[in-house]
Amino acid sequence: MHLTTLLTVIEIAATIAFAMSGLVEATRRKMDIVGVFSVTFVSAFAGGTLRDVLLDRRPLFWVEHTEYIWLVAALVLSAPLLLRSREHHLTDKVMEVVDALGLGLFTISGASLALVAGMPLTVALLLGSITAVFGGVTRDVLCNEIPKVYHDHRPYTLCTLIGGALFIALDQLGVSPHLSTLIGICSISGLRLLALACKWRIPAWPRDTP
Amino acid sequence: MHLTTLLTVIEIAATIAFAMSGLVEATRRKMDIVGVFSVTFVSAFAGGTLRDVLLDRRPLFWVEHTEYIWLVAALVLSAPLLLRSREHHLTDKVMEVVDALGLGLFTISGASLALVAGMPLTVALLLGSITAVFGGVTRDVLCNEIPKVYHDHRPYTLCTLIGGALFIALDQLGVSPHLSTLIGICSISGLRLLALACKWRIPAWPRDTP
Amino acid sequence: MHLTTLLTVIEIAATIAFAMSGLVEATRRKMDIVGVFSVTFVSAFAGGTLRDVLLDRRPLFWVEHTEYIWLVAALVLSAPLLLRSREHHLTDKVMEVVDALGLGLFTISGASLALVAGMPLTVALLLGSITAVFGGVTRDVLCNEIPKVYHDHRPYTLCTLIGGALFIALDQLGVSPHLSTLIGICSISGLRLLALACKWRIPAWPRDTP
Repeated sequence: MHLTTLLTVIEIAATIAFAMSGLVEATRRKMDIVGVFSVTFVSAFAGGTLRDVLLDRRPLFWVEHTEYIWLVAALVLSAPLLLRSREHHLTDKVMEVVDALGLGLFTISGASLALVAGMPLTVALLLGSITAVFGGVTRDVLCNEIPKVYHDHRPYTLCTLIGGALFIALDQLGVSPHLSTLIGICSISGLRLLALACKWRIPAWPRDTP
Repeated sequence: MHLTTLLTVIEIAATIAFAMSGLVEATRRKMDIVGVFSVTFVSAFAGGTLRDVLLDRRPLFWVEHTEYIWLVAALVLSAPLLLRSREHHLTDKVMEVVDALGLGLFTISGASLALVAGMPLTVALLLGSITAVFGGVTRDVLCNEIPKVYHDHRPYTLCTLIGGALFIALDQLGVSPHLSTLIGICSISGLRLLALACKWRIPAWPRDTP
Repeated sequence: MHLTTLLTVIEIAATIAFAMSGLVEATRRKMDIVGVFSVTFVSAFAGGTLRDVLLDRRPLFWVEHTEYIWLVAALVLSAPLLLRSREHHLTDKVMEVVDALGLGLFTISGASLALVAGMPLTVALLLGSITAVFGGVTRDVLCNEIPKVYHDHRPYTLCTLIGGALFIALDQLGVSPHLSTLIGICSISGLRLLALACKWRIPAWPRDTP
């Protein structure tokens, strides 16, 4: 499969994963239909949009692929049926897996595009993380909360940095894009799921000022 | 009147309308003068700025027309006099009309510019809504609130989508820009005022997850 | 010293100053290490990034100078030691001076780059303020607070406007860039420190609507 096609497939899956997280959060806040739609769109598109704006890529990914917009809209409309057919406990578990997958997918898409655009390696690493995390941060800000990823002590951004660094290292070593992409995504998603399963916690900040 | 001139007139009126909404909200939060200025500017300029950044239009509309900046500054400075001379109830009613007008104006300006830039129709529809709604969303985030448009169950974004779709359809059918612009603005502003007068409510999100 | 070099030195010092403010705020919120890193980065880079996006400057300043990223990372990692070695009262005083310096530095960097890009004078004035204040505004939004600069009644944005106007006036009068830059920075930082020392307050907004 051509690399561009692969990245497109990645983007679609990641978009669905992150849309779901926004959908669940907005319904928990008892938003109305417009609010649910908006927060879902923002969760799905904000990370990739910021990536494109920072890289000055035009058309934006959801302009180039307007089918993403319809996909997310269809997801929101079908959600009441999807959510109804599942037990709550199951939904939480499913969401964690979907979200971990989205995390890996979006990180590698951000880092890949940054490398293709000739960015320095440090910037590619940061852009991978930003692409993956910014949607969730914006979602939480719109829900009037401190972003969960900043204070829940569970590895999330850290996974994107570790797996992103691995992907960039493999890419620099001349490993084929397909393989490095696959390894990058699996390491991030796997690390995230492992961290959840083992209840790993990242340390609190050593704090002296009152 | 030339279409560009028409769009400029639209932008000026919409800018004033949205600036007023930020001004009222910031004074309600008892912000200081700098806060009132800032929130007023953001309410007036954030939607159009995001539209320009997403479309990669430069110069930004408030760089091309620096008189907008002075206009908003003059509005803020004259506001204490304006607000003093009116009854509270009247002010609320006036604000609703002004805001409805701004809603129509900014939606059509966003959708028009997107069409001129050759964007797909779906994107033009979304950009119309984003241009109209983003200023208010940012205003509420800066005031540390969940954006009102996401949970007040009153049609706002919906009006921009319906009227925006009507405008885009007329445009595609070859109706003259002047006529389609006029119909678009009137349908959005009218729909919004009708929704307020009839107390229409948009349904809550069907919710099963606890 | 060449002007570009001077602006680079300015940017480095301002970046450190603003990173510190984010670091302190994030630790006060008891964020985890990832949150502290993120808020520190955002406080340091958001203002300059928004400036670059609005001016359509690429590469972004932290892409052109990836050493800034390492600098901020090193600052965060060394912070526990730095903060431990100081009394709390002293830290607050030091922070005020560092922040005042950052305020002056970032304002002049924003205004300078806007002038170099051929922006109108009003826009250069606004961009100076935005560059200086946006990092702090974003920091407070991420910490789920109304931005302090909007309601603490202490001159902050006002200092950037006064000193920024002075810098632009000197620049237009043909004063050498080095001198006008120096005067601009000193006037903003000095005014801020004077305002804090004398406990100057900016007036509340005259408010009549209930």
